Amino acid sequence: MVDSYHMTPEEFRVRGHEVIDWLADYMETVADADIIPDVDPGDIRDRIPAAAPETPESFEQIMSDLDEVVRPGLVHWQSPGWFAYFPANTSPPSILGDLVSSGLGQQGMLWSTSPACTEIENAVVDWMVELLGLPSGWKTAGPGGGVIQMSASDSTHTALVVARHQRTAQGGVDQMVAYTSAQAHSSVEKGARMAGIPHIRLISVDDRYAMRPQALAVAVAEDLAAGRQPIFVASTVGTTGTTAVDPIEAVGAIAREHGLWHHVDAAYAGSAMICPEFRIHQPGLDTVDSYTTNPHKWMFTNFDCNLFYVADRSQLVETMSILPPYLRSQRSEEGNVIDYRDWHVPLGRRFRALKLWFVLRSYGAEGIRHHIREHVHLAKELEERLGADDRFDLIAPVPFGLVTFRHSAGNEATDALALAINASGHSYVTPSKLGETSFIRVSVGQTNTGRKHVDRLWRVIDRAA
Amino acid sequence: MVDSYHMTPEEFRVRGHEVIDWLADYMETVADADIIPDVDPGDIRDRIPAAAPETPESFEQIMSDLDEVVRPGLVHWQSPGWFAYFPANTSPPSILGDLVSSGLGQQGMLWSTSPACTEIENAVVDWMVELLGLPSGWKTAGPGGGVIQMSASDSTHTALVVARHQRTAQGGVDQMVAYTSAQAHSSVEKGARMAGIPHIRLISVDDRYAMRPQALAVAVAEDLAAGRQPIFVASTVGTTGTTAVDPIEAVGAIAREHGLWHHVDAAYAGSAMICPEFRIHQPGLDTVDSYTTNPHKWMFTNFDCNLFYVADRSQLVETMSILPPYLRSQRSEEGNVIDYRDWHVPLGRRFRALKLWFVLRSYGAEGIRHHIREHVHLAKELEERLGADDRFDLIAPVPFGLVTFRHSAGNEATDALALAINASGHSYVTPSKLGETSFIRVSVGQTNTGRKHVDRLWRVIDRAA
Repeated sequence: MVDSYHMTPEEFRVRGHEVIDWLADYMETVADADIIPDVDPGDIRDRIPAAAPETPESFEQIMSDLDEVVRPGLVHWQSPGWFAYFPANTSPPSILGDLVSSGLGQQGMLWSTSPACTEIENAVVDWMVELLGLPSGWKTAGPGGGVIQMSASDSTHTALVVARHQRTAQGGVDQMVAYTSAQAHSSVEKGARMAGIPHIRLISVDDRYAMRPQALAVAVAEDLAAGRQPIFVASTVGTTGTTAVDPIEAVGAIAREHGLWHHVDAAYAGSAMICPEFRIHQPGLDTVDSYTTNPHKWMFTNFDCNLFYVADRSQLVETMSILPPYLRSQRSEEGNVIDYRDWHVPLGRRFRALKLWFVLRSYGAEGIRHHIREHVHLAKELEERLGADDRFDLIAPVPFGLVTFRHSAGNEATDALALAINASGHSYVTPSKLGETSFIRVSVGQTNTGRKHVDRLWRVIDRAA
Repeated sequence: MVDSYHMTPEEFRVRGHEVIDWLADYMETVADADIIPDVDPGDIRDRIPAAAPETPESFEQIMSDLDEVVRPGLVHWQSPGWFAYFPANTSPPSILGDLVSSGLGQQGMLWSTSPACTEIENAVVDWMVELLGLPSGWKTAGPGGGVIQMSASDSTHTALVVARHQRTAQGGVDQMVAYTSAQAHSSVEKGARMAGIPHIRLISVDDRYAMRPQALAVAVAEDLAAGRQPIFVASTVGTTGTTAVDPIEAVGAIAREHGLWHHVDAAYAGSAMICPEFRIHQPGLDTVDSYTTNPHKWMFTNFDCNLFYVADRSQLVETMSILPPYLRSQRSEEGNVIDYRDWHVPLGRRFRALKLWFVLRSYGAEGIRHHIREHVHLAKELEERLGADDRFDLIAPVPFGLVTFRHSAGNEATDALALAINASGHSYVTPSKLGETSFIRVSVGQTNTGRKHVDRLWRVIDRAA
């Protein structure tokens, strides 16, 4: 038995340098590693003892297990050959900002429990309003405001809860209805289920996979005629399947006519709005009620970093606020500070603004624009190559960095092609379906993806097709 | 304009060492810093430019702002003089585990998107079942299971959603009722509101601030008689106000009789269960439906690290699962892996098990027990000092590390005493209220709190009283 089992700051200094070096080595080698590990279920678990150690293990042992246990089970989301799902990027400045957050151990539930956590978050979410061309009323000085949440799923869920809570249930909650497109992310349906909104209508889409406003209008009218209560609609800018863009203005007009909360899910594509040329895809934000985007996808900021904006924060805070005596603070009662605990489900919150602050400053706006434009440019080039080749059919337009295509010989050839690409080890894509049609999603957006990686992907597509 | 704005791995290595050193310096000096910053609302914000930089800033500039902008606005939750709220501890191994998580950028929504993330989480939540003496059926091999969520608020909310979803709404959701004690954390009421459960009953407590089962039985009977539908009850082990312990077995008997989901909130006190002698406070877990505790409070693992266990994971997964084509995976369809996306509201998830794995291995079970016992011992000593002194009245028993007391001269003297302690700079407590009675919460549990820090707190109490 010893007096203290804590690692001293001096040992932290030494071990910290080791971990940083291990990560730098990882960064230098990840491009050469096979993206998908060769493991079966249980393989990693089998390398871990059944019970926690009774006595301390050395840090050498723990570091050694990063190579022996952890690394063999990694999927290399940070490989430049990562074209699957959407990116979940990290970057050196983000990692370092997050490290500071872990080390300072701030708990920013109230302004008074960490003024730095709260006010740097105020500043950064306001910066992002300007950077993304969002309505100026969404800044902290306006009636709206932004907050960092964990994920777009959380933000969409929050929007659904506020919509439900702010509307008097005319025929009981059991009659409430939410709407989104048939191509929307599953988080809308999941959020509605969590929020206890029993009816969700998945509105049909046009030939570009965008929501058909006329179909929305019909669905709302039918529900009203049946005595139900439409309360919420989510538009998507950049759907998961094909990055389709819903017509925000037309959906918004229907939402306003019927008093629906209008939420915009730009989880992936929102980052592109730092480049003004992409803002043609999200006109009409001035009248929406809430908006969400994930810097942890395409803005080089590691998970979790989701932005959630509302046009009127009083409704959000009124819905979320419960004030027990142990959370009272003089500053809060004076009313001139923001207590972010009232902006989401969790109470505790870490200093997540730091990593986004580090990223925005380290890249500068022009640096982020440069890399996002480069990704979109590479995606467009790939689209042209595929479009010019009889072996392939394009599935949907390419407004951002996602290219969708299929083998013209049909589903079987498409599925085989996806398997062949992924068997290459160096490139990884997502096979998906639209109805019964198989297709391949190529998302160009990993932090370090450049021309040579897209060329390499093209070569494997070319050979395997 | 340059070709790349990315920080290279080589520069990351250099800057990473600088950040580690900055944090080690912080650890070495935090004990001497005034815990609460001398700032007014807006002071930190005023040091930040109104807009993001257009061009990259140097890392020197960013590091310099850690001292110039961030540090002046910190509340030192990691000071050993931190006796406020409950602890939100970090520790060197936790920080390093979290750093690896940030750097690897895994996205563990499915087993197949990161086998390492999923299986190390499987292993660690199973380790914790044994370490905390939880029912063995809660291990991954059993019908139940555990998952790391962000906060106890999230887990309690999840439990409420599952309870609501798994019960047929006999008279509509509008008739559903949830119960907890009047001393329960606000997250139960907030979670019920989020989940759309319209009725919440705050059951009265006994003279030790524990829920009165007889009052619960009466409330349930009244609701049934009125045609409402009781669906959920939360017991607390270690309430926020006074660490009161609800009678889990008696509450559980009522829950079973009426088919209520029984959730146990041990957000703070759960960590103490690593010491078998504290398990007298949570008998009867074999029949509860869900349980939550926060290693990010008292187990030296930085936020966010909440554990959520269920006795029957099929109900949880059935409630949470929505499967769009882009989330299908062969491994998932074979059914022999866990996809944690179906265990909570968010879809994306970072590799949070790493930091807890680092902590458990670096301290060993005996190391964590040692420090938790030390904290409880110091709390008991303080309780004895206060109890033996006519100037003070104790408020509640001290089962764990929280001491609650007041100045015997009344509210005004108690409030003044809290202000005086907090004005010391070196020690920080939370003033609170039970009804109209002011009292002071002293939570002994910060990672580095030792006898000398409690002695220093006692001296300022002694002088100021």
